[in-house]
Amino acid sequence: RIDPDRLWESLMEMAKIGPGVAGGNNRQTLTDADAEGRALFQTWCEAAGMTMGLDTMGNMFATRPGTDPDALPVYMGSHLDTQPTGGKYDGVLGVLGGLEVVRTLNDLDVQTKHPIVVVNWTNEEGTRFAPAMLSSGVFIGKHTQDWAYDRTDAEGKRFGDELKRIGWVGDENVGARKMHAMFELHIEQGPILEAEGKDVGVVTHGQGLRWIECTVTGKESHTGSTPMNMRKNAGRGLALVTELVHEIAMANQPNAVGAIGHIDVFPNSRNIIPGKVVFTVDMRTHLLEKLNAMVAEFMERAPKLCVDIGVQFDCHIVGQFDPPAFDEACVKAVRDAAEELGYSHMDIVSGAGHDACWINDVAPTAMIMCPCVDGLSHNEAEDITKDWAKAGADVLLHAVLNTAEI
Amino acid sequence: RIDPDRLWESLMEMAKIGPGVAGGNNRQTLTDADAEGRALFQTWCEAAGMTMGLDTMGNMFATRPGTDPDALPVYMGSHLDTQPTGGKYDGVLGVLGGLEVVRTLNDLDVQTKHPIVVVNWTNEEGTRFAPAMLSSGVFIGKHTQDWAYDRTDAEGKRFGDELKRIGWVGDENVGARKMHAMFELHIEQGPILEAEGKDVGVVTHGQGLRWIECTVTGKESHTGSTPMNMRKNAGRGLALVTELVHEIAMANQPNAVGAIGHIDVFPNSRNIIPGKVVFTVDMRTHLLEKLNAMVAEFMERAPKLCVDIGVQFDCHIVGQFDPPAFDEACVKAVRDAAEELGYSHMDIVSGAGHDACWINDVAPTAMIMCPCVDGLSHNEAEDITKDWAKAGADVLLHAVLNTAEI
Ligand SMILES: NC(=O)NCCC(=O)O
Ligand SMILES: NC(=O)NCCC(=O)O
Repeated sequence: RIDPDRLWESLMEMAKIGPGVAGGNNRQTLTDADAEGRALFQTWCEAAGMTMGLDTMGNMFATRPGTDPDALPVYMGSHLDTQPTGGKYDGVLGVLGGLEVVRTLNDLDVQTKHPIVVVNWTNEEGTRFAPAMLSSGVFIGKHTQDWAYDRTDAEGKRFGDELKRIGWVGDENVGARKMHAMFELHIEQGPILEAEGKDVGVVTHGQGLRWIECTVTGKESHTGSTPMNMRKNAGRGLALVTELVHEIAMANQPNAVGAIGHIDVFPNSRNIIPGKVVFTVDMRTHLLEKLNAMVAEFMERAPKLCVDIGVQFDCHIVGQFDPPAFDEACVKAVRDAAEELGYSHMDIVSGAGHDACWINDVAPTAMIMCPCVDGLSHNEAEDITKDWAKAGADVLLHAVLNTAEI
Repeated sequence: RIDPDRLWESLMEMAKIGPGVAGGNNRQTLTDADAEGRALFQTWCEAAGMTMGLDTMGNMFATRPGTDPDALPVYMGSHLDTQPTGGKYDGVLGVLGGLEVVRTLNDLDVQTKHPIVVVNWTNEEGTRFAPAMLSSGVFIGKHTQDWAYDRTDAEGKRFGDELKRIGWVGDENVGARKMHAMFELHIEQGPILEAEGKDVGVVTHGQGLRWIECTVTGKESHTGSTPMNMRKNAGRGLALVTELVHEIAMANQPNAVGAIGHIDVFPNSRNIIPGKVVFTVDMRTHLLEKLNAMVAEFMERAPKLCVDIGVQFDCHIVGQFDPPAFDEACVKAVRDAAEELGYSHMDIVSGAGHDACWINDVAPTAMIMCPCVDGLSHNEAEDITKDWAKAGADVLLHAVLNTAEI
C-alpha cells in the first residue's frame, strides 16, 4: 500500500506553487509557475531514482527501469497545469499519485519486468491555449506539432514561444515512445462517486466533446442615441445562443451537457452597444451520434436566432474528441485491484476529457477516479479527502503492478 | 463666419493623437494620449492669445478677455477624451469648434463685453472611470471631488492617481467659476438630423440616464462533469437579463432605450461554468417618470429571473442623471443664430448625456448638434462632413456673440 501522508505532503507542496486567490491554484500552462512546478516534480523524480525524458511538446517522462530490456514501459500520470481558478488535485493527483507508486515500489524494493514511467502532459486544461489535452493530442498524432506551436493565448502569445520561454522544450521527438499500457488516476470532477458512497470509480468510457467558437457580429454604436430599431446588438445574440445551448442539452438528457464558459465582448464599454461577441460553446455526451446531432441542431438554429435580431453568426470547432471506450484488460486491471484491496467501487463514465482519452487511441489505457467534495472542480474550492487519495493511489499501484509484472 | 478648413485641419491634427485601429481614436481619459491631446490644445489656445486655467479635476479653461471687467464669461466647449473605439468628432468638435470661434473673433478683431472661455471637461466618456461626465458633475457639486478621485478603472487604478500621473492636476478649485452662459456644440450621435436633412439641431432637452451595475453569482464548476441539474450558471443570468432589458425598452417606445455594453465573465474559461458575471445596464428616456418606472420594473423582475435558474442577482446604480430641459433664452439664441445664418434646423432631444446636461443645473445652457453619418457614434467609423462642422461652428459663433455681447 502507498503512504498516504507522503502523497498528501507532496500534493500540498506542489499547491504552494502558483497559488490562487481562494485557496486553490492558478498554475496555468507555460507560465513561470508551471515551470516552477515542473522543476519541483523533476527534483522529486530524480530523488526517487528516475531519469527524466522531455519531448518537443514539453511532455515530461520520468522512467524507473524494468528488468526486461525488451519490455515496453507501463505509463501512469496526468497533468500539473491548472485552470486560472483551479483546485489542488485536478491532474496533480494523477502525476504525484504516480510518483507515490514509484516511491512505494522503491520502499518495498520491488522490481518490475516492464519499466514504469510517470508522465506530466503539457497543457491538459486548454484554457490558456485551446484545445484541451493539446500535447497528448500531438503525441498520438491527432494534431501536428506545428499547429500546436501556433496556438495563441488571449494576449496573442504563441504556445511554441511560451514553451521555449519557460525553458521546457525537450529534444525527444513527440510521439516517438511506445507504451505497453497507460493508467491515469484523476478526481471525478463530478458528484456521482460521493453520492453513491464509493471509494473508487472504474472508468469504462468517456464523454465526447465539441468546443465551438462562435462570433456574433453586430454594429457598435451609442447606447443612448441609437434608436432601438436601428440597433445591431451582438450581446443579444449571445443571450439567445446561451439559452439555445441550455435547451439543447436539456432536451438530450440524461448525460448530455452544454454551456458557454468563455465570453469576450467588444469593445466592452458601458455606453457602447456590443459590436462583436466571441464565445465558446462546450457540448458533451458519451454517445457519438447524440453528440453529433446536438452540434448539428446548434449549428442550424444559432444562425437563425441571430439573423432574426439583425446580427450575424459564425462559428467553427476549436476542440473535439469522440467518446472513448477504454481498454477492457486495463479496465479489468483497475476493477480487480479495487476488489483485491477491498475498496468499494463502481463503473463510471468520465464527464471531463483527459489525456488518457487520447492515449487510448495508441495504447491500452484505463482511468481510475476518486470522489471529490460536492462534485466541484475547476473551482479553487475543489476538495478531496486523504482517504480518497489513498484509495485511488493504492488501486493505481496494484493495477500498474499487475500490468508491469513483478 | 468661421473658417471651415482651419477647423477641419485642427480636427485632423488632434485625431493623430491616440489613433484607434480602424481610422478612429482611442484617446481615453487620463492616458498618455489624453495628456498629449491636452498639451496640443493648450498650445493652440495660447497661440490664439488665450490664457489657460486648470482646476483640480483637470478641467481646462482657456480665456479670451472681455471689455467689461465685471461681466461673467460665456463658456463653450465639450471634451477631448474618447471611447476605446471612438470617433474623431464626439466631444472634439465642441472643443475645437470653440477654439475656431475664438480664432475667427481674433481674425475679425471683434471684442466682446463678456470674456469667452473654451473648456475641455475631463472624463466625459466614463468608459475608463464611471460615471460619464464625471468632472462637470464635480464642477456643479453633483459628486464630491474625493469621491471622483476614488473612482477606479478596470485595472484598479484611481482617477486621482492617474490625473496626477499625467500631470494635469490644476490648482484652481473645481466649481469656483461662475458662468454667464454655456454652449456645447456636439455631433448628434443619432440618425435623426441626417434623415430629416437638417444642418443643425437645436437641443431643447436631454434624455435621463441610469447605469445599473449588476452581478449575477452562480457557482464555477466543470462544464463536462457537472450534471445539468447541479449547475448554477451565471451566464444564463446574463442571458435572461439581456433580454429583459431589451423587452423593457421596447415596451416603453417611443424614445426609450436599453442595452448592456460592458460584461465581465469570471473566471472566463472555456471549460468552466461562469461563477460570476458583472455587467452594466444602460437605460434612458427623456421623461423622468418613465425612466424611473423602467428602472423599477427592471429591479423587480431581474432578481426573479435569476432566482428561478438558481443564481443570485445584485445591482446598484453607478451613474445617473435626470432628463434636463435647457435654458429657454440660450436655446433661443441657438435657434435664432441658425435662422439668421440660413441653416436648416429642427428642435431635437439629445440621446446621449453631455457635460452641458450637468452645467445646465448651475448656468443658462444650451446645445447645438450637427448630423453624423448613419447616426453612428462610439465607433471608429463615426463620420461627419466639413459642411456640417461648418454649420455647427457658425451657429456656435453667433449664439455666443449674441450672448457675450459686442
Ligand atoms: N479534466 C479536465 O478538466 N480536462 C480538461 C478538458 C475538459 O474540459 O474536459
Ligand atoms: N456624448 C456621450 O457619448 N457622452 C457619454 C455619456 C453617455 O453615455 O451619454
